[in-house]
Amino acid sequence: MTFEVTILGCSSASPSYHRHPSAQILNIFERFFLIDCGEGTQMQMERYKIKAARINRIFITHLHGDHYLGLIGLLSTMHLQGRTKEMTIYAPKELKEIINIQLKYSQTTLRFPITYRDLNDDQSEVIFDDEQLTIETIILNHRIPCTGFLFKEKRKPRKLIKEMVEKYSIPIESLYKIKSGEDFVHGKRIIKNEELTIAAPPARSYAYCSDTIYDERILESITGVNLLYHESTFMNDLLERANETFHTTSKQAGMMAKKALAKSLLIGHFSARYKDLNPLLLEAQEEFPATRLAVEGETFIVE
Amino acid sequence: MTFEVTILGCSSASPSYHRHPSAQILNIFERFFLIDCGEGTQMQMERYKIKAARINRIFITHLHGDHYLGLIGLLSTMHLQGRTKEMTIYAPKELKEIINIQLKYSQTTLRFPITYRDLNDDQSEVIFDDEQLTIETIILNHRIPCTGFLFKEKRKPRKLIKEMVEKYSIPIESLYKIKSGEDFVHGKRIIKNEELTIAAPPARSYAYCSDTIYDERILESITGVNLLYHESTFMNDLLERANETFHTTSKQAGMMAKKALAKSLLIGHFSARYKDLNPLLLEAQEEFPATRLAVEGETFIVE
Repeated sequence: MTFEVTILGCSSASPSYHRHPSAQILNIFERFFLIDCGEGTQMQMERYKIKAARINRIFITHLHGDHYLGLIGLLSTMHLQGRTKEMTIYAPKELKEIINIQLKYSQTTLRFPITYRDLNDDQSEVIFDDEQLTIETIILNHRIPCTGFLFKEKRKPRKLIKEMVEKYSIPIESLYKIKSGEDFVHGKRIIKNEELTIAAPPARSYAYCSDTIYDERILESITGVNLLYHESTFMNDLLERANETFHTTSKQAGMMAKKALAKSLLIGHFSARYKDLNPLLLEAQEEFPATRLAVEGETFIVE
Repeated sequence: MTFEVTILGCSSASPSYHRHPSAQILNIFERFFLIDCGEGTQMQMERYKIKAARINRIFITHLHGDHYLGLIGLLSTMHLQGRTKEMTIYAPKELKEIINIQLKYSQTTLRFPITYRDLNDDQSEVIFDDEQLTIETIILNHRIPCTGFLFKEKRKPRKLIKEMVEKYSIPIESLYKIKSGEDFVHGKRIIKNEELTIAAPPARSYAYCSDTIYDERILESITGVNLLYHESTFMNDLLERANETFHTTSKQAGMMAKKALAKSLLIGHFSARYKDLNPLLLEAQEEFPATRLAVEGETFIVE
């Protein structure tokens, strides 16, 4: 089952060296989620052949422009392309005021409804839950209210071993319980579940943490995550600048992945001062070897 | 003296085929004016090596997103780059509300002051005038209030012929009058100005007309213009659609240039439906041969 993230933008506030501000497309089981939507996101989607019509949920971390300025243009283009399907936007509550004032002055009435889900900025909450996945917020620590997002696949039931079902002539009405882990009573004998089923692959998860100062309180949300995206605006020689501006260094991003027992780390939100990003990668890898750069246009599979 | 326009965006509302929404840089005597500022303008400026710090005046025609959504990002980047110099923005009066609400929620106080010059939308007016040039608005006819801009170089004084000044021993105090066209009294003889001076080159002008339905009332503003930029959203087989949406066809743009006795025509603001723009060019050229496509990254000299 697909679980992968495509990077549309990896720049911090000033776009530079042809890098774009934050935006990612998360594809979970062919459901497409847009996370942050910096200026130019709709052009990046065209470049990387992402169909806007497939996106039904948008997640905005905070109201610094490099994380949401592309949204009104994207919504307008969806309108012009004839969209009628509802869009759900998870964002700080003030976003709708910004969107609405722009629609008002352009005298535009969108052809599709938008449902705004206001984010709580002081306590993590479950904002989406269905049979396949759960989405929770992560309370980040930035200059203005800012929430990351944790996307968690739900673990599937155990898989029946066909030969065993036949061997013990297990009736259909018992199969559901066995899939959820129960043993089976065959005459006087108890057949252990492990003999009848194999475990489903472990549930996967993706955490998006941008923008934030290094703050270990997020470990409560992200520990054990498969793929952690953590901002890495500066290198560690600018730690003081990172602290002042409530950002993180590459070394700190690596430390966080290590403490979180993450399987792998993606770093992004790079400052305009870095043309070559490899020094940031190497710095993070010293702390956490399974680190990669969030290069635009690349897709990273959550494994 | 430099008088040229560089195209940063030539797309209409939905960007497509890697074309970007409206934005142009006009360089008049090394003064840089930004005309419209669609989403992604700051990235286009980086691509075509336009320095944001050189721009001190920005002109926004109207409040459809494809003409101004890049502005807040550009202003934020100027702020991050340390700009302290005042910026003047000529725009519909509601623009400052849109900018201010976004600055408020991002908790940003720009390091430089912005002077907003509200545009009158029912009567052409002079919005800038100094010894080198005049800028006037052009009242366009669109779905919402929309003004174009006419940039006119001022004609320079006539140039003295050095040999004649010596021949007639013209005193310094008379030179100013002669340069402005007066004859010179030499004893009892009147020396005609044409013998003493040569004419300065004619003053040049550039008109920016986007977005608008075909409306000949603009001829009052643009007749005799050197270079006319006129929107050309559709081809003439979609004339009805152009009328409904208050846009112009390529044929009509050509007709307008012909009626305006323009020296040359630039067409732009192309609909997302056209991958190949040559048919639009050919259609306009049938009416007005000196037509060119407003291709992004190209610079057109006003001659």
